[in-house]
Amino acid sequence: MSAEWLRRWRRGGPAERPGPDPAAGPGPPPPALCYRRPKFVPGGAEESPRGGRAVRGAGSERRLPWGAGYAEVINAEKSEFNEDQAACCQISVRRREPGLEEDEEWLILCSMQFLTGYYWALFDGHGGPDAAIIASNYLHYCIKQKLEEVVGGITEAQPPMHLSGRCVCDSDPQFVEEKHIHAADLVVGALENAFQECDEVIGQEMEAMNQTGGCTALAALYFQGKLYVANAGDSRAILVLKDNVVPMSSEFTPETERQRIQHLAFLFPKLLDGEFTRFEFPRRLKGDDVGQKVLYRDYFMEGWGYKTVEKADLKYPLVHGHGKQARLLGTLAVSRGLGDHQLKVIDTNIEVKPFLSCIPKVNVFDFALHDIKEDDVLIMATDGLWDVLCNSEVAQMVRSFLAENRTDPQRFSELAKCLVCRARGMKRGHQWMLDDSHEASYDDISVFVIPLHNKEED
Amino acid sequence: MSAEWLRRWRRGGPAERPGPDPAAGPGPPPPALCYRRPKFVPGGAEESPRGGRAVRGAGSERRLPWGAGYAEVINAEKSEFNEDQAACCQISVRRREPGLEEDEEWLILCSMQFLTGYYWALFDGHGGPDAAIIASNYLHYCIKQKLEEVVGGITEAQPPMHLSGRCVCDSDPQFVEEKHIHAADLVVGALENAFQECDEVIGQEMEAMNQTGGCTALAALYFQGKLYVANAGDSRAILVLKDNVVPMSSEFTPETERQRIQHLAFLFPKLLDGEFTRFEFPRRLKGDDVGQKVLYRDYFMEGWGYKTVEKADLKYPLVHGHGKQARLLGTLAVSRGLGDHQLKVIDTNIEVKPFLSCIPKVNVFDFALHDIKEDDVLIMATDGLWDVLCNSEVAQMVRSFLAENRTDPQRFSELAKCLVCRARGMKRGHQWMLDDSHEASYDDISVFVIPLHNKEED
Repeated sequence: MSAEWLRRWRRGGPAERPGPDPAAGPGPPPPALCYRRPKFVPGGAEESPRGGRAVRGAGSERRLPWGAGYAEVINAEKSEFNEDQAACCQISVRRREPGLEEDEEWLILCSMQFLTGYYWALFDGHGGPDAAIIASNYLHYCIKQKLEEVVGGITEAQPPMHLSGRCVCDSDPQFVEEKHIHAADLVVGALENAFQECDEVIGQEMEAMNQTGGCTALAALYFQGKLYVANAGDSRAILVLKDNVVPMSSEFTPETERQRIQHLAFLFPKLLDGEFTRFEFPRRLKGDDVGQKVLYRDYFMEGWGYKTVEKADLKYPLVHGHGKQARLLGTLAVSRGLGDHQLKVIDTNIEVKPFLSCIPKVNVFDFALHDIKEDDVLIMATDGLWDVLCNSEVAQMVRSFLAENRTDPQRFSELAKCLVCRARGMKRGHQWMLDDSHEASYDDISVFVIPLHNKEED
Repeated sequence: MSAEWLRRWRRGGPAERPGPDPAAGPGPPPPALCYRRPKFVPGGAEESPRGGRAVRGAGSERRLPWGAGYAEVINAEKSEFNEDQAACCQISVRRREPGLEEDEEWLILCSMQFLTGYYWALFDGHGGPDAAIIASNYLHYCIKQKLEEVVGGITEAQPPMHLSGRCVCDSDPQFVEEKHIHAADLVVGALENAFQECDEVIGQEMEAMNQTGGCTALAALYFQGKLYVANAGDSRAILVLKDNVVPMSSEFTPETERQRIQHLAFLFPKLLDGEFTRFEFPRRLKGDDVGQKVLYRDYFMEGWGYKTVEKADLKYPLVHGHGKQARLLGTLAVSRGLGDHQLKVIDTNIEVKPFLSCIPKVNVFDFALHDIKEDDVLIMATDGLWDVLCNSEVAQMVRSFLAENRTDPQRFSELAKCLVCRARGMKRGHQWMLDDSHEASYDDISVFVIPLHNKEED
């Protein structure tokens, strides 16, 4: 499960790297990490001025897969950089000949050996932009490589599933069927493994460059008739269909993953180094609470109980605060994502990484089971959007915008800009305000609008 | 969190034990463990003959809470004893005066200090009947005690929640409300803690008696207008309402908890002592699989991938088989329950308990949100019933039986017998067969039918 393939490939230098074959996705990642906006955003590395928070979109000369729309805006004052990153491309998955070595295979190019996937992803960086940039450079390579490892199982007739022309369950032909292993399960497994591999790559790259930071990752993959959305972090994807809204991800935060995080601290109390308490209380306890009974809950509880406060309970809580203020070890606002291998709690030797998970939850939408209408879209956005807009508000904007702009060839790009503008609001004095006079989003905001109806045209 | 209260109480002997006050629930547990059927089943300790598998019910002279019906049957050939046990009672929860010691309180009996709950529970034993008997003797005591620990938080006006007349969040009055802590959360926490305490009690009792074994536990508690169903194991509770069926529990088996179990083995590989592999494969691997690629999944995967088989993969799997044949460490068919503190994998020093959880999942049904009709019932049954009948079959039987038997005062008991009879089937030759000529349940079968409509009459 190592990133050996990547190391070998990177050591090989440009001569061994694939050329910029459009059918094989974007060109190879840049040899050194440099700050930039996504390649499909005109202006390249240049950053939009933060004061004005100008909304930027994909250039009209660079068509994104399926004619998807994209827009982004930098935060008001949160960080110097726009720490969101985005990527999209075709992913061409080669069928591997059993018995051939990888390097030999690399030279075999035959169109019949390709399956084509489509990929869009958002990465929300923290502690610097580097992890998000590396993830936007590499995650699709990891996905491509992991899909190629299982493509034999996907393309053969099933059940039973074959590999190397040999049934993996010939002693018990019912076995695969009873375990309900389908081609989609191999794609889900490939995405899970790809996130893990990308996390490893980021760790190696960041260590080599002496950089820190991490990012959330939300990736959508269309492959063999199904849409897979893999999420590790607090970005969100929803399908806005004619008659309903289908959530395609759920957010991972220190609050939503409290029990997993507390359980790890229970199993390995040394990870807290005596500086934190794993118990949850309604508020941070104070010295004069000692001896009082307060509400608490431990890792195994969904309910609450009372306990008598001891001195050890006064330590800083493992998960503290709620909503956007919730922090893991007082440090991090998300509980899943890529990177952060070097992150420690300030002024301590306590590592955050053991509590962070790089594994995504993957949701699958089967196009064969749904009658996709013309204006049906997948909306992907970082938390900058969802902090101020709920699913139904976004769905309402999507439906009315698309109904009113039937003929504009740039309608999905314009819709993406419109959503970003709505969440960013307008500047009034020193504040960014929404239409309804609530505070607007101060965060970076990135949005993909992906039309589903014309998917077969690409 | 120790069972100190129980040790003290048991040491105290009969003089310090509460008398058989009907309002305070059943009498004290028997001083020594002896095999018996539930107290409300006429015939006491005597077992029904296994060959005939006669269905036994609650005696008509012993009314169960809410006029609930009960029936049971012993297994055909699975074990010498009926390893299912059952319990039901009122649970009287005293309000504790802050500052009073427990022993002083014990003497204060004032009807205004009682809140009344109603309790029904099923325990499905394995490895002997002892754990199920102890659980049926003690779990309601543990629940009563845990409810008394939080009753101040339940009975005071809220939010904010008070204890000892002091707001636990006076520095931040929004805090409790934002965490959405309600009285129901305290009951859920009390049930979670009660299961844990009961597990500890069983461990102590079984060690003292040099006994082994464990049991599943499914407990329903009606308290303050809500029905709580706490489940640890593979029994099941469903609400059969006029217009729909509401599942009130979900089963915990080595298959449903595969990821939790594999994760523990990943974190503490020594628990497997080199004898088991934590990976899941579609089937047990053989020597000539080494070097081949096979489907697998690890603890972080919901999908599947391929791996090349190594020698270590040939070890016995941590979770093996599927459905009723699935076993944890080749030993146990459930992944949650009480007891089993001494259980080891045969011929090894590998302990099963670390992989077993005693924590229930608690589901809550709020009567205030539903218009309960006359024939609405809660069905609780051990896996012996659900192995051969699905929710909709049971619901259909319940509705037609109650519609056809409107006036029989014993209708809920008769319905319980009818459900047990259906799952037990009829003996044809050496086999027990269902009406539809499928194999009937060979397991112990226990069923509660609890009418919801007349709950306030008790």
